[in-house]
Amino acid sequence: MITGLQAQQNANHIQLDVKQNIQRKNIHIPNIEGYQSLKGDFHIHTVFSDGLVWPTIRVRECWAEGLDVMAITDHLEYLPHKKFMKGDHNSSYDLAVQEAKKHNILLIKASEITRSMPPGHLNAFFIEDANKLDKKKPEKAFEAVREQNGLMIWNHPGWKAQQADTCRIYDIHKQLIKEGRLHGMEVMNHTEWYPIVLQWCIDHQLAVFANSDIHDVNGYVYDVKQSHRPMTLLFAKEKSFTGVREAIESARTIAWFDYQLAGPEDLLKQLFEASVQLSSPYYKNGDMEYLELSNNSDLQFSFLNETPENGAPASFILKPGKTIIVKVKKGTRSFRCTLDNCHIGMFKNLQVELM
Amino acid sequence: MITGLQAQQNANHIQLDVKQNIQRKNIHIPNIEGYQSLKGDFHIHTVFSDGLVWPTIRVRECWAEGLDVMAITDHLEYLPHKKFMKGDHNSSYDLAVQEAKKHNILLIKASEITRSMPPGHLNAFFIEDANKLDKKKPEKAFEAVREQNGLMIWNHPGWKAQQADTCRIYDIHKQLIKEGRLHGMEVMNHTEWYPIVLQWCIDHQLAVFANSDIHDVNGYVYDVKQSHRPMTLLFAKEKSFTGVREAIESARTIAWFDYQLAGPEDLLKQLFEASVQLSSPYYKNGDMEYLELSNNSDLQFSFLNETPENGAPASFILKPGKTIIVKVKKGTRSFRCTLDNCHIGMFKNLQVELM
Amino acid sequence: MITGLQAQQNANHIQLDVKQNIQRKNIHIPNIEGYQSLKGDFHIHTVFSDGLVWPTIRVRECWAEGLDVMAITDHLEYLPHKKFMKGDHNSSYDLAVQEAKKHNILLIKASEITRSMPPGHLNAFFIEDANKLDKKKPEKAFEAVREQNGLMIWNHPGWKAQQADTCRIYDIHKQLIKEGRLHGMEVMNHTEWYPIVLQWCIDHQLAVFANSDIHDVNGYVYDVKQSHRPMTLLFAKEKSFTGVREAIESARTIAWFDYQLAGPEDLLKQLFEASVQLSSPYYKNGDMEYLELSNNSDLQFSFLNETPENGAPASFILKPGKTIIVKVKKGTRSFRCTLDNCHIGMFKNLQVELM
Amino acid sequence: MITGLQAQQNANHIQLDVKQNIQRKNIHIPNIEGYQSLKGDFHIHTVFSDGLVWPTIRVRECWAEGLDVMAITDHLEYLPHKKFMKGDHNSSYDLAVQEAKKHNILLIKASEITRSMPPGHLNAFFIEDANKLDKKKPEKAFEAVREQNGLMIWNHPGWKAQQADTCRIYDIHKQLIKEGRLHGMEVMNHTEWYPIVLQWCIDHQLAVFANSDIHDVNGYVYDVKQSHRPMTLLFAKEKSFTGVREAIESARTIAWFDYQLAGPEDLLKQLFEASVQLSSPYYKNGDMEYLELSNNSDLQFSFLNETPENGAPASFILKPGKTIIVKVKKGTRSFRCTLDNCHIGMFKNLQVELM
Repeated sequence: MITGLQAQQNANHIQLDVKQNIQRKNIHIPNIEGYQSLKGDFHIHTVFSDGLVWPTIRVRECWAEGLDVMAITDHLEYLPHKKFMKGDHNSSYDLAVQEAKKHNILLIKASEITRSMPPGHLNAFFIEDANKLDKKKPEKAFEAVREQNGLMIWNHPGWKAQQADTCRIYDIHKQLIKEGRLHGMEVMNHTEWYPIVLQWCIDHQLAVFANSDIHDVNGYVYDVKQSHRPMTLLFAKEKSFTGVREAIESARTIAWFDYQLAGPEDLLKQLFEASVQLSSPYYKNGDMEYLELSNNSDLQFSFLNETPENGAPASFILKPGKTIIVKVKKGTRSFRCTLDNCHIGMFKNLQVELM
Repeated sequence: MITGLQAQQNANHIQLDVKQNIQRKNIHIPNIEGYQSLKGDFHIHTVFSDGLVWPTIRVRECWAEGLDVMAITDHLEYLPHKKFMKGDHNSSYDLAVQEAKKHNILLIKASEITRSMPPGHLNAFFIEDANKLDKKKPEKAFEAVREQNGLMIWNHPGWKAQQADTCRIYDIHKQLIKEGRLHGMEVMNHTEWYPIVLQWCIDHQLAVFANSDIHDVNGYVYDVKQSHRPMTLLFAKEKSFTGVREAIESARTIAWFDYQLAGPEDLLKQLFEASVQLSSPYYKNGDMEYLELSNNSDLQFSFLNETPENGAPASFILKPGKTIIVKVKKGTRSFRCTLDNCHIGMFKNLQVELM
Repeated sequence: MITGLQAQQNANHIQLDVKQNIQRKNIHIPNIEGYQSLKGDFHIHTVFSDGLVWPTIRVRECWAEGLDVMAITDHLEYLPHKKFMKGDHNSSYDLAVQEAKKHNILLIKASEITRSMPPGHLNAFFIEDANKLDKKKPEKAFEAVREQNGLMIWNHPGWKAQQADTCRIYDIHKQLIKEGRLHGMEVMNHTEWYPIVLQWCIDHQLAVFANSDIHDVNGYVYDVKQSHRPMTLLFAKEKSFTGVREAIESARTIAWFDYQLAGPEDLLKQLFEASVQLSSPYYKNGDMEYLELSNNSDLQFSFLNETPENGAPASFILKPGKTIIVKVKKGTRSFRCTLDNCHIGMFKNLQVELM
Repeated sequence: MITGLQAQQNANHIQLDVKQNIQRKNIHIPNIEGYQSLKGDFHIHTVFSDGLVWPTIRVRECWAEGLDVMAITDHLEYLPHKKFMKGDHNSSYDLAVQEAKKHNILLIKASEITRSMPPGHLNAFFIEDANKLDKKKPEKAFEAVREQNGLMIWNHPGWKAQQADTCRIYDIHKQLIKEGRLHGMEVMNHTEWYPIVLQWCIDHQLAVFANSDIHDVNGYVYDVKQSHRPMTLLFAKEKSFTGVREAIESARTIAWFDYQLAGPEDLLKQLFEASVQLSSPYYKNGDMEYLELSNNSDLQFSFLNETPENGAPASFILKPGKTIIVKVKKGTRSFRCTLDNCHIGMFKNLQVELM
C-alpha cells in the first residue's frame, strides 16, 4: 500500500511544457519618415453580436499577433445570441477595455451599423455610447456618430451577399464622403479584396482598410504563426488614440492581406524603400555583377523586372526577412521593377527603381 | 476614370487560401481485441460558466482535433459572467448538441459540481437536467445525479488550490466509491498529473481520466498541430453513448497527456502491443543483428532496456508514426524494457517483452 | 581560480537535444489486393557523377523519408568532378550498399546512360557491372544492359534542354519497346510532369515513374517534413529485389509528385478505394444527410462532383490523414466524382463512385 | 490516339512550387557600439576528409542559414575517403571559394591539425597553403601555421574521446598561449559545451568559439528553420577578412549554441542591452505597474529575478523576437536579474539591471 510520505511526493507533478508559452510576436514593419508604423484590425466580433468568443479573448489574440490597435465592432442590429445574452451595445467594450490596457493595446470604442445595401455595413469608431447609435433609420445612426465626434468606414463594399454582380458606390456614400463623414473603406475583408474600392479611396483620399471581420477564433481561421490576419497598417505621429485618429483622417494607411499590399503610391513607396535594400555589387564574374537584395520587414515583395535586358530574372520574389542574390550585367545603371503585389490603384501597381 | 465594365471585373477577388482549411485529424490509436479505441475530453468550459468561447466552438475544436466524445461541464456554482448571460445550466448543452450531431461527435450532457475540499470538484455525466443538480449541499447534488442515473468523477484531486501540501482521499470519496457512485478520477488535468490518484483508480478499479479543463481557446493553450490536448482514451464495444458509458463503468480507459500514458496494466500492455512492432532481423553484421522497431500509433514510447547486455542502447525513444533501427547481439532471445512514460501505478511502470 | 574538482564537473555537458533526432517516417500508402505498396526513387546522383553528397547520405535520406527501394544512377558519361574523384562506375553503389542493408533499404544497382536526344537519358537497373555499360555508342550500352539482364527506363522525355518545343517519341524508343527492352518512363521528374508520357506508358503497358533526379541535398530541395520527394509507388508481391523487378515488368507502378498521382486506371482506382472511405449517413437535418469522407493515406485527393444536384459541393479537397464532412440530399443514390489530381491518361482523370 | 498538337500542349508542366524556394535568413543579432555583429562557423568538413557533402554545399548551407563567415577545416591526417578522392589539402577550399564569393560569404582558408591528446585537434585559419601543414610532428605543423601568419584555435578540449574523465589544459597549450600562437578555443562544439574552457578563455583573453564541426548535411543535424547551428558571433570593425581576424585576435567573440551564450562579461552585457528593452510603465492597476520587455534579436534570454520582492516572477523566459508583459510593484526602482543562459565564466552568469 501507499504510504503518506509517498503520497505526498506523488501528489502533483506540474508540467508546464504541456502548454504553449505564447508571447507577443514583434511584427517588423519599418517606420517611415516622421511616422511610426502601427498594426490594426478595425473589424472584430464577439459573443455579444454573432461572434463566438468572449471580448477578452479578442484582446489577447491581437496582443499575441503583434497588433497595436483594435476595434470591437459588434453589430447593433444583428444579435443572434440575444436569447442568451444580457448587457447592451457597450458591454463588449466594457469587458475588454481593462484587458486592453493591461496588454498595451489601443482599444477603440466602436460599433457596426448593419443595413441592407445601400448603405450596407459601416463601422463607427471613437464613439462614446454605442447604445445611442441603435436607431431605426441608418441616417439617424450616422447622425449619432457625428454627435459623438466619431469616424466611419464602409465595410466590404463588394461583398457578394450585398452586391452579387457588381460593386458600385451609392449616392448615400457619395454624400457621406462629400460631407467629410466617411473616412475610409475596407479594400480587403476576411478573404476578399476589392480593387475598385482601392481606386475610390485613392480618388477621394480616404483611408484604406484590411480587416479580419473575425467571428470565429482568429487562430483557427488564419495561420497566425506562419502568416497573419488581414491588417490595416497606420503611419501615425505617435502610438495613441490621437495618433490613430489623425492617421485615419489623413488617409495614411495601407491594407495588408496575405501577400498583398494596397494603398496610396507615396506611402507604399516609402514603406517599400524602408523595407528593402539593394547592396552595391560585391562580386563580379565575367560580365555579371552580384548584388544582395535584402528585406528587413515581415512583408513579401513580388518583382517584375521592367528592364530584363539588365540580365536579372524577369520576375522574382523576396520573402519576409530574407535576402536574395541578384545578378545583373556589369554597368547596369537602372533597375526598374513593378511590384506585382503592391496595388496603388484599380489597375495600377507600384513601380520602384532599385539601386 | 474607371469604367463600369472594369469595375465589375474588379469588384471582388475571393482568395480562399488566405484562410486555413481545417479538416479533422485522424488520430491513430489502435483498437484492441474486442474494443474500439475512442478519444474523449470530459472536462470543458464555455462562456456559460467561466470559459471564454461559445459552446459550438468547443464542438468544432474537438472535431478538428480528432476526438470522438466530449462533455461540456460548466460550473453549477461558479458563474462569473452571469451579469451578461441569460439561460440556465442546460444552455451550453442545448446550444452545442446539434453542432455535435452534425460533426458526428458524442456530446455527453454534463455539469461540474464545484465545491471546496472535501468533496472538491466533481463532474456528473449522462445527466438529464443540470438545473436539478443546483443544490445548496453537495450531497443533494450527488443525489440528483443518482436520480438521473448519471455517472460521477472526481476532478483534479491534487489541485494545489485545494490540496496545497498533500493529496489525500476523504471519507466522502471513500463513501461514494463504496456505494458505486464515483466512477473515475482525473489522474491528469490541464498541466498537472497526480501519480497517487492513478494508484487509487487501480486499487478501486475506477476509470482514469486525462482532461483539458479548458477555459481558453484550446488551440491557444495546446499545440494541436504538433501535439494534442490531454485526452481520455476509451476502449468501447461501440462508438455510442452506451459504449462510452459501459467503458467508463468497466474502467477501460487510459489517460494520455503529452507523452505520458497512465492506466491499468493489462489495457496499457494491449495498447502498446497493438501500437509497436519489432521485426525479425533483416541484416547481420559481425556479431550484431539489425531489427526495425515500428510505431503505427500517434503515441510516443520511451524505453529503458532492462537487459543492456543484449547490445541495444540503455534507453531510447520511439516517436509517433516512426520507425527506428535497433541493433542487438546475435542470438538475442529476450528484450525486456520498462516504458518510462507508461504508468500502471504510483511507483510502477509498464514492462514489456519485445520480440 | 578553478579547482580540479570543479573542472571535472564542468568538463563536458552533452546536450543531445541541440540536434534533431531523425527517425524513419512511416508513409501511409495502403496495400491493394494481393500486393504490398512500396515507395521508391529510381533516379539519384552522388559526388561520383554530378551530385553533391556522398552515397551513404543518399541511403539515409531515403530511410528517413520512408522509402523502401532506391537506385543510385550516376552518369556514365557526365563526370564534372572527375578531376577530384577516383573509383569507377561501381564505386557509388559499393559505398552505399552496406548502409542500405543496415537500413533495410533495397538498393538497386544502376547507372544513367546519358546521351543527346535521341535516345536522351536512360536509367539501367538490376545491372551487375556498370563499367561494362561505358560504351561509345548508346546501342552498345543498351546491349550491355541486356547482357546483364538489366531493365531500362527513359528519363524525363519532355526535358526542355532536349525537347524544347515538343515531346515526341523517337524510333529508337519504339524499337526498344517493341523488343521488350524499355520497361518504363519517367512521367514526372524533379519539378516536371509530362502528360503525354503517361499516355505512352498506358498505351504500351510500361511502368510509370516519378523520380527526384536529385543532385543537391534532398531535404534542401523538397520539404520532406510537410511534403515529400517525387516517388514511384510499386505494388509488389513482396518487399524484395524480385518483387520490385516483377512489379516494374508488370507495370504495376503509380507516379506520385506533390499532390499529383498518375498511373493505370485499375491500379489508381484500387489505391483510391483502399485510401478513402465514405461513411453511411450519421445525421439528418431537413432534407440533408451528413456523411464522413475519411482518408487513411498520406495522399491527397481533389474531387470534382459530377452530380452536383446531390447537394454536395462542386469541388472539394481531402487532405492526407484527414476526414471531412460531406452533406448530400437525403436519398442520394450515386455520387460520381472526377479526381482532378489522379491522371490515368493524357486527357483523362480517374472517375470514382463514392458510397 | 494522341495528336501532335495535343502532345505539344502536354509535353511538360513545370511546377516550381514542388520545390522549396530557399532564401537567405536574416539573423537578427544587433551590432554593438563601434562593431558590426558577424555570424561564423569555423569548423566544417567535406568529402575531402571525413565529411559527407561537396564543398559548394557547405557554402550554400552557410548562406541560407544567415552566416557571414566560415572556414572549411578538413583534416590533414584523417582521410577515410582517400581511396576515392584525388586532390590535395587545398582542394576543398579551391572548390568552394568562388561559390563563397558569389554568395558574399567570407571563406577563410583553413585546416584541422588532428592529433591525439596532447595537443588534440587544432584549427588553423588564414593560412596560404594547407599542404605545407602536413607534417609528422604537430610542432612542425604549428610552425608552418606561424610561417603563413595563420591563427590557431583548440577544438573541443573536453571531447570524451580524448579526455574521458577530465578536461585539463596541457603544457603544449600553455606554451602556445604564452607565445601568442593560440587565439581561441571551442567552448561549444556540435552537442557539447565545456564551462571550464570558457574560464580558460576569459583568464587568457582568448576568443571563444561555438562551431558545428559538421560532417553530415547540416540541415539534417540541426533544425535550421526553427533553431540554428552552433555559431561564433564576432564583433568586428567591418565585414572583411581583416575585420574577422582582428575580432578573433582581440577576443571579441561570443559562443551561441541552442539557447546558451558564452563570452566575456562586457561583450555579453552589451549584446544583451542592444537586444532587450524594458518599457516605462504603460498601465497601473492597484499597486502594480505593467511594463513591456521586448526582444528585437533572434537570441533567447532566461531571467532569474534577484529581487522577487518587486512582484515580478521568480524566473521567466523571453523568446527570440517576442515581447512579454512584466508586472512589478509600483515604485519599483531596481530590477536585477541573473541570466541563466548567459555564461561569463565557469561558475558565473551575467547579471543585468533592467530599467
